[in-house]
Amino acid sequence: MSTTLKFTALLLALSLCRGLRHDYIDNYIDNYIDEVTEEEAELVAQPSKYGSLWPLPQKVQLSEVSFKLTSSSFRIVDAKDSTAGPSCSLLQDHNNNILPSFNNPDVAHAMFVSTDELSVNQPYAVLKAPKVWGALHGLETFSQLVYEDEYGAKSINSTTISDFPRFAHRGILLDSSRHFLPIKVILANLETMAMNKINVFHWHIVDDQSFPYLSRTFPQLSQQGAYHPYTHVYTPADVKMVIEFARLRGIRVIPEFDTPGHTQSWGKGQPDLLTPCYSGSKPSGTFGPVNPILNTTYDFMSQFFKEISAVFPDAYVHLGGDEVDFTCWKSNPDIQKFMDQQGFGQDYSKLESFYIQKLLDIVTTTEKGYTIWQEVFDNGVKLKPDTLIHVWKGNQQQYQNEMANVTSSGYRTLLSTPWYLNRISYGQDWQGHYKADPQDFKGTEAQKKLVIGGEACLWGEYVDATNLTPRLWPRASAVAERLWSAKDVTDINDAFSRLSVHRCRMVDRGIPAEPLFSSYCPHEYKGI
Amino acid sequence: MSTTLKFTALLLALSLCRGLRHDYIDNYIDNYIDEVTEEEAELVAQPSKYGSLWPLPQKVQLSEVSFKLTSSSFRIVDAKDSTAGPSCSLLQDHNNNILPSFNNPDVAHAMFVSTDELSVNQPYAVLKAPKVWGALHGLETFSQLVYEDEYGAKSINSTTISDFPRFAHRGILLDSSRHFLPIKVILANLETMAMNKINVFHWHIVDDQSFPYLSRTFPQLSQQGAYHPYTHVYTPADVKMVIEFARLRGIRVIPEFDTPGHTQSWGKGQPDLLTPCYSGSKPSGTFGPVNPILNTTYDFMSQFFKEISAVFPDAYVHLGGDEVDFTCWKSNPDIQKFMDQQGFGQDYSKLESFYIQKLLDIVTTTEKGYTIWQEVFDNGVKLKPDTLIHVWKGNQQQYQNEMANVTSSGYRTLLSTPWYLNRISYGQDWQGHYKADPQDFKGTEAQKKLVIGGEACLWGEYVDATNLTPRLWPRASAVAERLWSAKDVTDINDAFSRLSVHRCRMVDRGIPAEPLFSSYCPHEYKGI
Repeated sequence: MSTTLKFTALLLALSLCRGLRHDYIDNYIDNYIDEVTEEEAELVAQPSKYGSLWPLPQKVQLSEVSFKLTSSSFRIVDAKDSTAGPSCSLLQDHNNNILPSFNNPDVAHAMFVSTDELSVNQPYAVLKAPKVWGALHGLETFSQLVYEDEYGAKSINSTTISDFPRFAHRGILLDSSRHFLPIKVILANLETMAMNKINVFHWHIVDDQSFPYLSRTFPQLSQQGAYHPYTHVYTPADVKMVIEFARLRGIRVIPEFDTPGHTQSWGKGQPDLLTPCYSGSKPSGTFGPVNPILNTTYDFMSQFFKEISAVFPDAYVHLGGDEVDFTCWKSNPDIQKFMDQQGFGQDYSKLESFYIQKLLDIVTTTEKGYTIWQEVFDNGVKLKPDTLIHVWKGNQQQYQNEMANVTSSGYRTLLSTPWYLNRISYGQDWQGHYKADPQDFKGTEAQKKLVIGGEACLWGEYVDATNLTPRLWPRASAVAERLWSAKDVTDINDAFSRLSVHRCRMVDRGIPAEPLFSSYCPHEYKGI
Repeated sequence: MSTTLKFTALLLALSLCRGLRHDYIDNYIDNYIDEVTEEEAELVAQPSKYGSLWPLPQKVQLSEVSFKLTSSSFRIVDAKDSTAGPSCSLLQDHNNNILPSFNNPDVAHAMFVSTDELSVNQPYAVLKAPKVWGALHGLETFSQLVYEDEYGAKSINSTTISDFPRFAHRGILLDSSRHFLPIKVILANLETMAMNKINVFHWHIVDDQSFPYLSRTFPQLSQQGAYHPYTHVYTPADVKMVIEFARLRGIRVIPEFDTPGHTQSWGKGQPDLLTPCYSGSKPSGTFGPVNPILNTTYDFMSQFFKEISAVFPDAYVHLGGDEVDFTCWKSNPDIQKFMDQQGFGQDYSKLESFYIQKLLDIVTTTEKGYTIWQEVFDNGVKLKPDTLIHVWKGNQQQYQNEMANVTSSGYRTLLSTPWYLNRISYGQDWQGHYKADPQDFKGTEAQKKLVIGGEACLWGEYVDATNLTPRLWPRASAVAERLWSAKDVTDINDAFSRLSVHRCRMVDRGIPAEPLFSSYCPHEYKGI
C-alpha cells in the first residue's frame, strides 16, 4: 500500500542543543517510520523485514503504509516545545548530511509543531530524544528508513521505533603512529562512525614508530619524533578540527598517550625521558621504556598531561600501560640500584606499578578519568575506583576470565580482544566479530553492568590511507550492532541481509566499505 | 659526486612504432642511469644498492656520478636512425605519464641524435629496444632511476642496464563477475600493471554471478544476466577502450569465457543453453553446466566465439573448463541416455571432454590459440599442441607435480596456484608470493622452458571497486618481480627495501597501494 502524501517530519529534542558537552551515556527515545526497499531486496537471498536498519533499533513496529517524500513537501522542523530550536546547527547540519537531496534552505525548518506522538492518519514523523545526541542518532535511523525506486523517488513507510544503545561506550581505535593518517581519512571515518552509531573515537595517536602529535609545550616531540616534522604531524588546529567534527556527530575523542612502553618516538625529542639500555657495564646506545627513577620524568609528564587535558575535552584519557618489556630496565645499573632501594627485589612489575601509580596521580590532578590496558590491572597497580580497564589479550576463554576478574574487583571494563580488526583472514570474518558478546562471561548481574562497552581496534602496522577505510567497514559495523542492539539480536542471516544493504548505503555516501560477498550495489564506489 | 649538467635522453627504438600488435614475447635491451635516493633511504633500515628499481632489471651497473634534471634542459628525443619517429604517440604518451613534470611540449622531442651507447662523459642517456614494447618498459625503468631532493629537484645517476623478462607471460586476473568493476578501476589497474611490467590482463569477465559483457550477437546475455542491464555492463565501446588503453601500455588483454561450468548467468539470457536439473523424474527448476548434448549449444558457441575472436585482438582466449559439477548432468535422463549412446558409462569426465573437444574445435576455426584451466588436461581431453595449461590447484607439492606432468606431456604452462591474491592473511604475505618460483619442479631443462610464466589471480567474491586496488598492490608486485627478474633475485631484505619505495612511488602516482609494514611515504595517499 502506497499513498502520496505531503510529508513533514517533526523534530522534538527535549534537551538544549547548544552548550552541551558529550554525556557519558546517551540514551534516547525516538519514533518514526520504516520499510524494506524492492531494489535492495535483490541484493540478498532473504531480505530482512527490518530493511536496511543498522544497527537494529531496540523496538521496531512495522507497517506497510508508505508515504512519498518530495523535496517540495518534505521538511524537518522543530516542535514548538522543543528545547532545540531552529538555531541548533548541530541537528540541521546533520540532516543536510544524511539527506543531501533534501537540502533545500527555502523549505527546511519552516514549521514548528507541538506533538510527541506519531499519527499514521497525519503525515507527520515525530522524533523525540532526551538529549541532542540521541536526536542525531534518530536522524541517522530516519535516513535509513527512506528508500528509493529506480528513478530516485523517495518513500518511507509508517513505522514506530523506540531505541537506545545497549552499551554506552561504542568505540573504534585508529592508530596514527605506525602510519600517519591524513586528517581527511580520519574525518571520513568519523562520518562513517556516525552512520554506525559508534560514539567513541579512541585515537591511538603516538607510539614507538612516530609521534605526530604537535605539542605546544614540547614541540620537539613531533619535530624529532614524527615521520616528518611538517607533513606528518597533527597541529593544534588539526586536533581541534577532529574533535569538533566528531562532536558534531555525537562522537567523543579519547586520546591515548601510551607509557611507559611504546615510547621510542618520544625519546627522540625529549632527552633523558627513556631508560638507557646497557650492554654489560656500558650504555648500548639504545633506549627502553620511560625512565621511572628520575624526577624529571614526572615533571615532564605533569606538564605534558596538563596540556593534553586542556586540548582534549573528553572526561577520559587513555594511558596505555601495555606490553612493558623489562629487558632494558634489567640491564641498567641505576635502575637495579633503585630497585634495591625500594625493596622491589627482581620484580620489575613492581617498578612498572611504581611508575603507573605516579602517572595516575598526575593525571588525577587534571581532573580526568582514565582508561588503561589490562596489564596495569593484572600487575596489581592501585587504581581509582572509576578506572576503566580495557581488555585486549588472550583467547576467548582468557578474555572472558579477565572480564570476570576485572568486574569482580568492582572495576568497569571495555572489551576489545575479539575485535582486533587489523587481523584479517579470508572470507566473512565479520561473522566472528558479530557473535562475540562482551557480557558472555561467568559473573553476577552486577558484574555484567560494569561492562560499559567495547572497541574495535584497527592497529596500524599494515594500514594507512590506502586501505584503512575498506578494511574497517563494514567489519566494524558488526561490532557497532553488537554494542548497540539488544543482546538477542543474533540472527546471522538477518544481519547479513541488513548489513549488505547498509554497506551499499555507505558506498552511496562515498565511503569505500568493502563487500561482504559476491553482490552488487546500485551505485558502485566511484573512486579507485 | 654530483654534477649539474644539461641532460638529454635519447631514445632509439629499433622497431616500427605504428602498426605493431602485441608480440608474444617482448625482449628488449636498454641502457641508462640509476641510483638510491636519500629521502627513500629513510623508509627502510637497509636501503638497497638498487634503489627503487622494481622489478629488478637483469643487469645493472651502478655509478655515483649524478646529473641534475631540469625541465628546461631535459628532453626525450628519438635517435636519427630509430625506426620509431617523433610521431610515435605510444612512446610520447607514455613518457608524459611517467615523468609528468617534464611534460613540456616546447622542448620535448626537439633533438634527433644517433647513438646506441651511453657515454658518462656526455650528458646522454640512451635507450635501445628491438621492439616498442621493450622501449615502453625501458621508459618505466628510466622513471624509476630519477630521484628527488626534498625541494623536488630531480637527479639521476650514471647507470648501465641490460634488461629482458625471464618469462614472457606475466599476468593478472581480475574478476568482473562476482562484483562488477567500473571501467575506471580497470584502467587504473592497467596503469599500475605497466608500472610493474605486467604484460597480460586476464579478464575473467563473466561467471555464475553475473554476465556484464554486452554481446552484440546475444545482447540478452547481459540484458538478463548482468547485475543491472545498463549500469553494470561492459559495452562494446568500454571493451574497446580497455583493450586500447592496455595496448598503449604494452599489455595484452586475454578474455576468459569459462564453460561448461561457472555459467549460471549465461542461462538467464540464453534459453536451453544450460542443463535442466532433475529432482526424481521431474525438472527441479534449477540448471547445471552448459548442456553438452544439444546441437543448439554448439551453434550458440560458434556464433559467440566468432564475436569474441573479433572483439579481442589477442592471439589467445581463455576457455576456462574448471570445476565442472556433475550432479546436475547425472540427474538428467536425457543426459543419461546420451551417455549410454556414446558408451561413456558413468564417467562424466568423458562427457565433459566431449563438450570441451567440440568447443576447442570451434575456437580453432576462429584462428585463436587457447588457454584452459588444468582440469581439462587432467581429464585427458585431446588438446592442440600449442594449448596453454593454466595450473591453479593444490598445495606446493601438488602444483609442482602438475607442472611436471603438463610439461612432460609437451604442453606449455602458466602457474597461478601460489598467487591467489584474493586469499588474504595477516602480515607480510607478499613474501610467500615472492618466494614461489614457477620453474621449481622436477623436470628437464626442456620442460622448464615450457613454463612461459604465471598470473596473479584476484578472484572477486570479496573484492570490488572499494578494496581491489590496495589488495592487489603491492602484493602483485611481488609476483611481477618473480616473473621478470633473474631466478637468483631472491634476497627478501633487498626486495623489502626496493618494494617499500616502489610502493610509495605507486602511491605518489595516485594508486592506493597498501603498506608492507609500519612506515611512511613522503607523499601519502590523498583519497580515502
